[in-house]
Amino acid sequence: MNFPLVFRMVGWVLVALAALLLLPMIFAVCYGESILPYLYTILISGALGGLAVLLIRPRKKALYAREGYLTVALTWIVVSLVGCLPFIFSGAIPRFADAIFETVSGFTTTGSTVLSNVEILPKGILFWRSFTHWIGGMGVIVFIMAILPSAGSGSVHIMKAEVPGTSFGKMAPKLKVTAKWLYYIYIALTVIMVGFLLGGGMSLFDSLVHAFGTAGTGGFSVYNASIGHYGNLYFEIVITVFMLLFGVNFNVFFLLLLRDFKSVLKSDEMWTYFGIVAGASLLIAANIVSLYNNFAEALRYSSFQVASIITTSGYATADYCQWPMFSQVILVLLIFCGACGGSTGGGFKVTRILLVFKKLRRDLHQMVHPRSVKAIRLNGKQVEESTLNDLSAYTMAYFALAAVGLLLVSLDNVDFSSAFGAMATCLNNVGPGLGLTGPTGNFGFFADSTKYILSVLMLFGRLEIFPLLLTFCPVLYRNK
Amino acid sequence: MNFPLVFRMVGWVLVALAALLLLPMIFAVCYGESILPYLYTILISGALGGLAVLLIRPRKKALYAREGYLTVALTWIVVSLVGCLPFIFSGAIPRFADAIFETVSGFTTTGSTVLSNVEILPKGILFWRSFTHWIGGMGVIVFIMAILPSAGSGSVHIMKAEVPGTSFGKMAPKLKVTAKWLYYIYIALTVIMVGFLLGGGMSLFDSLVHAFGTAGTGGFSVYNASIGHYGNLYFEIVITVFMLLFGVNFNVFFLLLLRDFKSVLKSDEMWTYFGIVAGASLLIAANIVSLYNNFAEALRYSSFQVASIITTSGYATADYCQWPMFSQVILVLLIFCGACGGSTGGGFKVTRILLVFKKLRRDLHQMVHPRSVKAIRLNGKQVEESTLNDLSAYTMAYFALAAVGLLLVSLDNVDFSSAFGAMATCLNNVGPGLGLTGPTGNFGFFADSTKYILSVLMLFGRLEIFPLLLTFCPVLYRNK
Repeated sequence: MNFPLVFRMVGWVLVALAALLLLPMIFAVCYGESILPYLYTILISGALGGLAVLLIRPRKKALYAREGYLTVALTWIVVSLVGCLPFIFSGAIPRFADAIFETVSGFTTTGSTVLSNVEILPKGILFWRSFTHWIGGMGVIVFIMAILPSAGSGSVHIMKAEVPGTSFGKMAPKLKVTAKWLYYIYIALTVIMVGFLLGGGMSLFDSLVHAFGTAGTGGFSVYNASIGHYGNLYFEIVITVFMLLFGVNFNVFFLLLLRDFKSVLKSDEMWTYFGIVAGASLLIAANIVSLYNNFAEALRYSSFQVASIITTSGYATADYCQWPMFSQVILVLLIFCGACGGSTGGGFKVTRILLVFKKLRRDLHQMVHPRSVKAIRLNGKQVEESTLNDLSAYTMAYFALAAVGLLLVSLDNVDFSSAFGAMATCLNNVGPGLGLTGPTGNFGFFADSTKYILSVLMLFGRLEIFPLLLTFCPVLYRNK
Repeated sequence: MNFPLVFRMVGWVLVALAALLLLPMIFAVCYGESILPYLYTILISGALGGLAVLLIRPRKKALYAREGYLTVALTWIVVSLVGCLPFIFSGAIPRFADAIFETVSGFTTTGSTVLSNVEILPKGILFWRSFTHWIGGMGVIVFIMAILPSAGSGSVHIMKAEVPGTSFGKMAPKLKVTAKWLYYIYIALTVIMVGFLLGGGMSLFDSLVHAFGTAGTGGFSVYNASIGHYGNLYFEIVITVFMLLFGVNFNVFFLLLLRDFKSVLKSDEMWTYFGIVAGASLLIAANIVSLYNNFAEALRYSSFQVASIITTSGYATADYCQWPMFSQVILVLLIFCGACGGSTGGGFKVTRILLVFKKLRRDLHQMVHPRSVKAIRLNGKQVEESTLNDLSAYTMAYFALAAVGLLLVSLDNVDFSSAFGAMATCLNNVGPGLGLTGPTGNFGFFADSTKYILSVLMLFGRLEIFPLLLTFCPVLYRNK
């Protein structure tokens, strides 16, 4: 294990974090709030990162899979530890367990909160809280790789580990260019969304934080009633559309930029995703129509919650815990489903679900015709057998983690649906769960130990299990 | 598809069913009850089966995988439809949906009931209800194969499909001999258990029905309070020990008969199984100790419920829904865990869980050392890659089925834990679930549609998904 290389990379991330913290500080200045919480954190992050970058000079620069995993895992842990300092220094979230939970929830774009009243918080803190979504959405290290000149050939391991999704599509032959394009698209879509919200009369501050929460598929709002606060159909439509867009594989946007519409149309992953959204919205609307004035109104609320949950954003305009159990279970299944691979969304991912069903169809065929050999195609391309093996490893690890997570959360002795909801929503980086952890609830009542457990689950979910899991395995450090 | 061969096999099963129905009829005579419900069913089953056997003469006698799957699926459906007739004819369970649920629950050795008061039922009906557990435990067709002279070479497909567990171990070089040995061991253990219960002062009738429920890992009792009715430590110990024994892979008993103790000691599946039982019992006992007089008493109740749930029997001596959530979640995880492969128990099976973790460890190793090749060993033998592929197919199908099952059950608009518990306990053939479907509840309140859905889930669980799933796939019937 090339520790110097890993530590130097984490150092760069801390330097970047210090720079990113300037933004909430500017907002604090504008709103006449204390800048000290940000200043202290910038100094700490900048000093630690700067020292690491200056002092650590790795002899070997080749980056292998193992260094990639450790870098990603370590980065996300360190960034969470440093990123929570403004919450603590400002007194907004004084308790360490709470601050860590909120920060991990931010960076992992979960959006679960320990706060019962967010409206009393300083603007700078609210900005930072939502900005963590935006930073975490596309990944901190991908950002570094887009701007650092030294990103070498091995950095594919880092991008694979940090960008969500089973098949990491290389957009350009050079990885650095791919990283840049990911960020260009990410920034452009965010800016367009802010424009739409401003155009509808939302304040600049609100537009920014809600665009951050949408782009990262996070879900932190600055209002206790989330997007329901506005009761504004235009905002709901804009946010629904952009939530869904940020749940699409970014390869699709890249193909659109290249005017390769043929390949876009062939993306069965995208069609499945939109098909699930349409189907779930209609089923729920039909199920809840008696609770609303008419089908159109029911569809308004069902489609927003469906888009919010499947993209793992977690914004709310209605308390789905008041809906019939059928609608709630559809949403629970969408919590596990998640968005497309290569998007900012979390969850098991539509891509994987599609592959599971394609593989299952092939397996059934082979049970009857044992000697037949059939290839699986996804998005018009043949899927390699190694990808299917990764899929099976991920599926097993995912459900094992869910089981362990549920067991550990249940130590807090809440009811089954609250415990199950908390595990599911944190593991899949969604935000709201069921029961006490539903859209109108929050995670503040949990014991500190449970908050740490849920924070770890969120990290596992965001990093798609293996980078973090390997950090605890001796095999990662053993030299052969 | 060789339909004549399939139908003739199902015919033999119906003839056997008619013969087996003589037993409850004898008990009805002894207790002075009407024998008509059994007589009518015997006539129907015997006539249908006899006609099929006499009239259908398949030209080709070779049995391939596809005929094996269809035979098994069809047999279990037909046996459930005919087996429910005594309940209807006697008026004990007049409603068809209820009778089907109870019968499927019996044959699949689930043990979930729609009855709120079983103590008022005729003895013959109670005997038949428990006897279905015993018949279904080892499998109807395996029984036929053990006695039929014509069981050909292809019958390995049937045994693979009907005997639970990932790796069907051939005990003897001839399959017919293996089937016979399975039944010898099954009958011997049942008889020994009846002896132990009689020795403790239990009546012959009670001993028989509880031995049937234990041997098949079913869980129907003749008392509303299940085994808790007796409040007798001796009975609890006997039943705990035998529940655990019937959850062990029958290969182990065969090896013991061969005095091959070395191979028995190498069975990591068995050690894992007993390890989970011991660990879960101790954890729950520690968690519930404040509800009981002392740790020993807590352990008495925890070990009984743990043995009952992991073996998927479903007997109860305590209402675990009153226990803290941590204990409940342990039991929920045990519902999914299930017993060893090649036993009469249901669930995902300890064997598969062990393989999942072994495969996961290898996958993690290969992520760091991509070029390394490592074989996986189970019970001292190398596991073939095709078995691992089957494992991954099964895992995916299993969780997909659980998701669909939960969604369909939620149409009944019960609370989340009751719906989840019902799905889990039926899919894994356990018996009690959570909430309304817990040990003191029953399944009578569900809508007819839900009872049918849960019945299908029980069949899927008992037949380990694929035989039944393939019945709905065109590929099974298409000739290449």
